[in-house]
Amino acid sequence: MVADMNETVAGRNLDWRTVSTANCSVAGAMQILGDKWTLLIIRDAFNGIKRFDDFCAQTRAPRALVINRLKYLVDEGVLCQEPYQEPGSRSRLHYVLTRKGRDLQYVLIALREWGDVHINESGKQPVELIEKNSGVAVRLALVRTDDDTLIEPTNIRMQPGPGFRRRSSSARR
Amino acid sequence: MVADMNETVAGRNLDWRTVSTANCSVAGAMQILGDKWTLLIIRDAFNGIKRFDDFCAQTRAPRALVINRLKYLVDEGVLCQEPYQEPGSRSRLHYVLTRKGRDLQYVLIALREWGDVHINESGKQPVELIEKNSGVAVRLALVRTDDDTLIEPTNIRMQPGPGFRRRSSSARR
Repeated sequence: MVADMNETVAGRNLDWRTVSTANCSVAGAMQILGDKWTLLIIRDAFNGIKRFDDFCAQTRAPRALVINRLKYLVDEGVLCQEPYQEPGSRSRLHYVLTRKGRDLQYVLIALREWGDVHINESGKQPVELIEKNSGVAVRLALVRTDDDTLIEPTNIRMQPGPGFRRRSSSARR
Repeated sequence: MVADMNETVAGRNLDWRTVSTANCSVAGAMQILGDKWTLLIIRDAFNGIKRFDDFCAQTRAPRALVINRLKYLVDEGVLCQEPYQEPGSRSRLHYVLTRKGRDLQYVLIALREWGDVHINESGKQPVELIEKNSGVAVRLALVRTDDDTLIEPTNIRMQPGPGFRRRSSSARR
């Protein structure tokens, strides 16, 4: 994707070894998502799976594991339980993505794009994401937040944000 | 990010329960990355960390775990070992991202953007990604692959790709 990410993503004057990672957003995200089965359940939820039995069938994970992960994702506010009723059956609960869960869209797309290139053979991607109206394939890109101009992935750097913290020296070894 | 992802990402005529996930690119990616420490090591590599001791200090993971994950990432071709030498010291090896590793850029950005909104308090993100020239903040977006036109995240659907497979009925329960 880019020629030299190390140079371009790391800020020139920002020695990462001095930066506190206590409030790192990537670490916080992975605290919830850092588990293969968790993300596969979220993938299936994006693809319309709602019922417990379908999550089990689709992930092929043991039922106890699916129960555990679904509960965790509900506790973390990524999924919520909603009642549904099929004709002639009693009301049951199924699982749907919350706003917090739906906001994982780009994480899943980024994982799929990477897997399409580096896990599956090139040109053999199982599914494609396309624009509804045009039928043209869609991909992730970087844009400026002020005017949505497209940005070269090499032309970025990291800088301290409003929640930036240095590591305390005792923690630095 | 979007109003109703379930409806828009799931293909209208594509019942996910009939789709084989054997070659799913998300599952393939998570097979490698489905571990919190693995992704934090990759995060640090993006931020310029190269030496074993610095990975240990930055992730605060046990040394045995860092050794294990670095070896795994080298075996999987995400990191490679390169010799380096400091003045007056013997030559040693450190770890740098390969092309396959650098291509995880959007995965990390997507995780950070999600964590910035849903894990850290809004407006308190620790670091920001900005365009080098303009100093303007940068974000992920969806664009058409043919002309880079910006796409509304609700205006997409999934369709079978060249590697698409149905599940065999025996595997379907």
